[in-house]
Amino acid sequence: MEIEALSAKLRKFASDRDWEQFHSPKNLASALVVEAAELLEIFQWMKEDESKNLDERTLNKVKEEIADIQIYLLRISDVMGISIPEAVTAKIEKNAGKYPVDKAKGSSKKYDEL
Amino acid sequence: MEIEALSAKLRKFASDRDWEQFHSPKNLASALVVEAAELLEIFQWMKEDESKNLDERTLNKVKEEIADIQIYLLRISDVMGISIPEAVTAKIEKNAGKYPVDKAKGSSKKYDEL
Amino acid sequence: MEIEALSAKLRKFASDRDWEQFHSPKNLASALVVEAAELLEIFQWMKEDESKNLDERTLNKVKEEIADIQIYLLRISDVMGISIPEAVTAKIEKNAGKYPVDKAKGSSKKYDEL
Amino acid sequence: MEIEALSAKLRKFASDRDWEQFHSPKNLASALVVEAAELLEIFQWMKEDESKNLDERTLNKVKEEIADIQIYLLRISDVMGISIPEAVTAKIEKNAGKYPVDKAKGSSKKYDEL
Repeated sequence: MEIEALSAKLRKFASDRDWEQFHSPKNLASALVVEAAELLEIFQWMKEDESKNLDERTLNKVKEEIADIQIYLLRISDVMGISIPEAVTAKIEKNAGKYPVDKAKGSSKKYDEL
Repeated sequence: MEIEALSAKLRKFASDRDWEQFHSPKNLASALVVEAAELLEIFQWMKEDESKNLDERTLNKVKEEIADIQIYLLRISDVMGISIPEAVTAKIEKNAGKYPVDKAKGSSKKYDEL
Repeated sequence: MEIEALSAKLRKFASDRDWEQFHSPKNLASALVVEAAELLEIFQWMKEDESKNLDERTLNKVKEEIADIQIYLLRISDVMGISIPEAVTAKIEKNAGKYPVDKAKGSSKKYDEL
Repeated sequence: MEIEALSAKLRKFASDRDWEQFHSPKNLASALVVEAAELLEIFQWMKEDESKNLDERTLNKVKEEIADIQIYLLRISDVMGISIPEAVTAKIEKNAGKYPVDKAKGSSKKYDEL
């Protein structure tokens, strides 16, 4: 519901501006990486602990970048007919199988190295 | 509701595995870019039109990558106390001001070049 | 020679500014992705053919982004003691084995799908 | 010389396989980000200090990813007629102006915040 409502807003936003012509899956995937990298840029020279204690101005920048990533993720899912809640739920189940608690506990290893 | 429910599932998933220690904002932002690039990899040599017509196997890979991106976006928002629906709604409003329909229609230019 | 000369310049540049403390492999790898994404941003809404015919201003931006990527690639190789010419030469040989001309000709498939 | 020699090898590699058709600047920029993200993936859950002390197997993976990034950087520069040594030299000079030693010493701030 919530996700579909945001998606519908963005669909209208793009349609009002005649932007569907630019929104191929290939282009939207590029835009997604670009926005994700803008988020990373904020943290790139910080220590991990610093990244947990941001001043308000920096936190606001983070919020905007997170919004941008979510916007393009909603757009690409919408143009490809993919349900995000379904995809996420299926992936969590799959990950539960790949990372059983007893093996994965406290480890950052990839499943094929556990 | 929907987003909070997925976020709560992921919070428990991480907590059960004692993974909070790895989930600093800095690290989660890295993981986000890595997943976004895995999505882009699927499309990198395709023509735009090809990216609109994927076979089932490729579409399933896309779904998994979209899920991975959403999962890390939910995680970083959760550990930073950011509400995704609020951030997205605020950004859509801001974008509406930067890209008024009459100026932005049919153009892929950035707002500062419109 | 040429690569080592550029690398030495950058080593001095960082050392003069006391920047070695920020230049861990982890951070430099983040900076590399960030710069690569800035290059991609230039092309993200273009058709492939447009990306082959840039105006002078855009071409100059491309040159700067390419320089930034090369700079961080030289830095990370330098701090990790990796020889770029050796690594590239070894990879070209490996790729020649993975992509034999008769199989790979005219195909953009990955080696494990050829 | 050294860079041009590697570039010429890669030009022949692509031409032998009839791959120029895939190597538009737009696609090569995507491939660059994808490879840069594969390098980052190696470091994503590590502490900065861990990233300075890799075992041999991990170091070999780093070398391969660095080679991949350099390969695509050489390819995009070659197809766009850009001289990497010239671009890097020009950027170092520009950076020297943006980051004067007395202001930038010991700081990871961006030039516009120094």
